[in-house]
Amino acid sequence: MARERFSAVYLLSGPKRQALSRAQDICYEQTVELPDDLIPCEFIKKNVLGNIESFKKSGSAFKAEISYPVEAAASELSQLINVIFGNISLKTGIRLEYLDLSDRFLKAFSGPGFGVRGLRKKLGIFKRPLLCTALKPMGLSSRDLAKLAYQFALGGMDIIKDDHGLTNQCWAPFKERVELCTSAIREANKKTGFTSVYAANITASLVEIKKRALCAKRAGAGVLMMAPGITGFDVMRDVAGDKKIGLPVISHPAFAGSFMASQNSGLSHYCFFGQLNRLAGADAAIFPNYGGRFSFSPKECRSIVRGCCDRMGHIRTIFPCPGGGMSLKRVRQMCDFYGPDVIFLIGGGLMRGNVVSNCLTLRSLVFADRA
Amino acid sequence: MARERFSAVYLLSGPKRQALSRAQDICYEQTVELPDDLIPCEFIKKNVLGNIESFKKSGSAFKAEISYPVEAAASELSQLINVIFGNISLKTGIRLEYLDLSDRFLKAFSGPGFGVRGLRKKLGIFKRPLLCTALKPMGLSSRDLAKLAYQFALGGMDIIKDDHGLTNQCWAPFKERVELCTSAIREANKKTGFTSVYAANITASLVEIKKRALCAKRAGAGVLMMAPGITGFDVMRDVAGDKKIGLPVISHPAFAGSFMASQNSGLSHYCFFGQLNRLAGADAAIFPNYGGRFSFSPKECRSIVRGCCDRMGHIRTIFPCPGGGMSLKRVRQMCDFYGPDVIFLIGGGLMRGNVVSNCLTLRSLVFADRA
Repeated sequence: MARERFSAVYLLSGPKRQALSRAQDICYEQTVELPDDLIPCEFIKKNVLGNIESFKKSGSAFKAEISYPVEAAASELSQLINVIFGNISLKTGIRLEYLDLSDRFLKAFSGPGFGVRGLRKKLGIFKRPLLCTALKPMGLSSRDLAKLAYQFALGGMDIIKDDHGLTNQCWAPFKERVELCTSAIREANKKTGFTSVYAANITASLVEIKKRALCAKRAGAGVLMMAPGITGFDVMRDVAGDKKIGLPVISHPAFAGSFMASQNSGLSHYCFFGQLNRLAGADAAIFPNYGGRFSFSPKECRSIVRGCCDRMGHIRTIFPCPGGGMSLKRVRQMCDFYGPDVIFLIGGGLMRGNVVSNCLTLRSLVFADRA
Repeated sequence: MARERFSAVYLLSGPKRQALSRAQDICYEQTVELPDDLIPCEFIKKNVLGNIESFKKSGSAFKAEISYPVEAAASELSQLINVIFGNISLKTGIRLEYLDLSDRFLKAFSGPGFGVRGLRKKLGIFKRPLLCTALKPMGLSSRDLAKLAYQFALGGMDIIKDDHGLTNQCWAPFKERVELCTSAIREANKKTGFTSVYAANITASLVEIKKRALCAKRAGAGVLMMAPGITGFDVMRDVAGDKKIGLPVISHPAFAGSFMASQNSGLSHYCFFGQLNRLAGADAAIFPNYGGRFSFSPKECRSIVRGCCDRMGHIRTIFPCPGGGMSLKRVRQMCDFYGPDVIFLIGGGLMRGNVVSNCLTLRSLVFADRA
């Protein structure tokens, strides 16, 4: 066992005997996929097979750290995902808690192109939380969405993003929408002196994704958004790492909720929103805020924050981006909970009454806290 | 509501009032993402918003059919997935049961390039179940894997596939492995007169996927395999629809188990393994057989079979490919359960003792049933 290995830590349900049997099962299922007596040589048993590095009680369940040979992941994110949670995603009572990857192992991954620092630098905002809002509803024309973008920009929202449901529908085709919205935001910025940017949703057919990214860039969009649950994590990594594109990427959780639907299967919030997003190059991770219309708990939200900012070798820290459940009344509470390195995503809450003055009120509430 | 719409049917947990509230929530969350009073015009309320077409009791839960405007999906698989289960994947007590798509709607999708008939024609096997096995374990050299492929081919296995864990590891790099294995299988075919084919696992980094597909094709692989849970469904669709590649694609469930981990959230087996795989161009769907080392029930396996072969406009029917839990003793039972249009995936079960004679025994047991 002298060769280099990386580890994944799993939460395993059941009484001790069953949990231990689950840990042993993972060692085989995620590597050789054969019972012990069919492994053809000692080399594979010693070097390729997963190995239980630790096994201990954790609440009413057990936690096992299982190591794999670095070579198994073949320096590819797709295969790393396969090794840590491929076939065992189909078994019950196993939840992937977190990855323990050495600095050397992490060198195979570029990670976010911007991260917290880079995105702050790009937007010229260095201390306070960032404010993000969404253009909606689906069904509005590009012109009407651009009008809304103009209002949000007048109100000084830092990032004005497409709702994740806006792609290339006939009501507001991508190119037209992006051009009108960026133009409207530019106009507003001229008036206000703010530096609002547009974030274009490029979640699409594979052949369209990069075309839309480049189209958005040409139009002057400052940020891109995509949903790795739909596109696959590696497609996001590919966009984030493409120098011709060179824009920050916000990760949206659409279609990925099933990974977090159960306490004893799937992936932890820490791993999915933090570690995997960072390995896949996202600069910010949208997730459902606690107390909103979704069901994440404060504890889960806190673990996402840690996943976004815990040390991961050379991989940059990224912004947690809680959405939903954020009314003007709760702003101060949210500021206390999340601290300054956060992007607050507030949508419908700003659209009741006067959009511009709602945004300005929000700004003053958030900034009061961080001079 | 005169415009064309498509439907998705959801299973909703809870007492009637709560289930109905979930159904109403889906209508908003999956389209406008705004409360009713913020929807800016009647056009959007009437035409864009989801609509509950039916709502009725189903066991201890409720089933709701919800329709969406065809335009919302923008003729893209990625956006169809987003509309049917994007944000609501993050809510509890909602499970997507199946899609109800009109023949006209389905014309936006090519579906499988081969399907049951096409794959049968390609392999020259017209009535009986197909037999598939997997090369493993990870850690063997390409030469040793090719030796094993040779044995499987001598035994007349129709499809000899990479284990899904084999990608491009140093132990058996992709190009070397594919060339040695296809060559070994060709040799064996010359001896036996069988027509075994090699199925190469092309699940990889996005930039590598098509390169590996073409590399496999050049080497003489007859089939490709990929895991849409890892790559994203649309990447599989892109490979399946690429005429330069032109090979059948087998879909592997790695990393996708969380979608099926709960009875009251995620996706139904029918929808994920059948409908989504077919929309994404897979010609066969691997899934964990009942009674094996995974936890699918006979009822769930039967629903996958229906998902693979129920009518879907012009979209071809595909092979269900149950894996695991298939010993020589259970072959007849499996034949009765699945009927002839199936690919049996049998791995480790053939590797104990004499591989060639195990395969030949399996062949005789399966074919005895279907002369």
